Amino acid sequence: MNQQQDNLSEDSNDFSEEERAAVYRTIFSRRDVRGDFLNNPIPDDVLTRVLQAAHHAPSVGFMQPWDFMLISSKEKRQGVHDLFLEANEEAAQMFDGDRQQLYRSLKLEGILDSPLNICITCDRERTGPVVIGRTHMREMDLYSTVCAVQNLWLAARSEGLGVGWVSILHKQALRHLLGIPENIEVVAYLCIGYVSHFRDRPELEQAGWLPRRPLEELIHYDGWDIRKKPGQN
Amino acid sequence: MNQQQDNLSEDSNDFSEEERAAVYRTIFSRRDVRGDFLNNPIPDDVLTRVLQAAHHAPSVGFMQPWDFMLISSKEKRQGVHDLFLEANEEAAQMFDGDRQQLYRSLKLEGILDSPLNICITCDRERTGPVVIGRTHMREMDLYSTVCAVQNLWLAARSEGLGVGWVSILHKQALRHLLGIPENIEVVAYLCIGYVSHFRDRPELEQAGWLPRRPLEELIHYDGWDIRKKPGQN
Repeated sequence: MNQQQDNLSEDSNDFSEEERAAVYRTIFSRRDVRGDFLNNPIPDDVLTRVLQAAHHAPSVGFMQPWDFMLISSKEKRQGVHDLFLEANEEAAQMFDGDRQQLYRSLKLEGILDSPLNICITCDRERTGPVVIGRTHMREMDLYSTVCAVQNLWLAARSEGLGVGWVSILHKQALRHLLGIPENIEVVAYLCIGYVSHFRDRPELEQAGWLPRRPLEELIHYDGWDIRKKPGQN
Repeated sequence: MNQQQDNLSEDSNDFSEEERAAVYRTIFSRRDVRGDFLNNPIPDDVLTRVLQAAHHAPSVGFMQPWDFMLISSKEKRQGVHDLFLEANEEAAQMFDGDRQQLYRSLKLEGILDSPLNICITCDRERTGPVVIGRTHMREMDLYSTVCAVQNLWLAARSEGLGVGWVSILHKQALRHLLGIPENIEVVAYLCIGYVSHFRDRPELEQAGWLPRRPLEELIHYDGWDIRKKPGQN
């Protein structure tokens, strides 16, 4: 390792305790926001920072396959909300009895409550048919786009902006409403805005829908069936 | 908004300038690491923090569909590396002429150079067949798992750990080698470890494979064909 690399290592590896704590604070306090949006507009410079964060996600073969559609028009958002209501009624009927009642009591989107919606898409042909790293896992460009969503979500949290991902929509109907071409894949439909507060825990956990799983139950070592760390009894 | 919410808002919305800067520093200096791994082991407490970050990703219907397989065995990693070499030769042959030569000059994985590999999977039936938010977009659980990958990647960066995502593998062969059941989807195969340095720019950008796209070319307003902000000329 030469001197220059050594310096780089000193410069770029070492986050302070405070910086590291800020990153974990963001990750652990990020929420899927549905009912807690305020209507104040998002300043342009803040929105640009959050979009730059998304744009600096990892992408397979440096493809950067994403586009960002910013939807502030009340009329368009009303159209998306209508699509949500239709799909959500279909969804509710897939649950039985008490579960359906609980489902119907949940607020699952903030399409009209938030000042801005963002549709994030994936252009699967952006850099031609053969892409480094996508040759054997064709889904990698979609996954890159999801990494952009998560970058945006975390950057937004650090700006005091809440984000909610609305997935109870017929994608084809959404594409038609927004004029998205057939060759472009819709990955995420997000609501974004300032919030009254960030909740302590995810809403579905709070509502008793499902508990948080213990991390240790999700860890395997060197093979699926090996649940103990090598060397431990 | 009641007093309690008001307090929550004060407490939880407001990141300091320094905290926000730390989040952006993480996002902008995160790299896909291939050739710059050091071999020192990752302390258990650091690894646990990074895995907790992954486990606190958003998940559709609070499904938490992920598992984390920690692969430190040299023999297993050698097996995965063999699978990589086979797939990478197939991949190289998909590129023509100069492009193939450049492809072959790129280092695309750190399977044996890093002390630990992590395979992240998605159990699509974890909470039964009907999942809130997955009723109309069946891929949402896979996307949740990708959000866990990105959380892990960013937490790792703040710990001075590099991560590389290896996707040039036949998934079925990988599943067989690691004993992953047929009903579990392989989402990501990661290499993780301390690094000599983090590069200034993505390696494929540095190598001249593709340039960074200007963000403004990726933004649309209220419809795919609308490329100017409403109200602007």
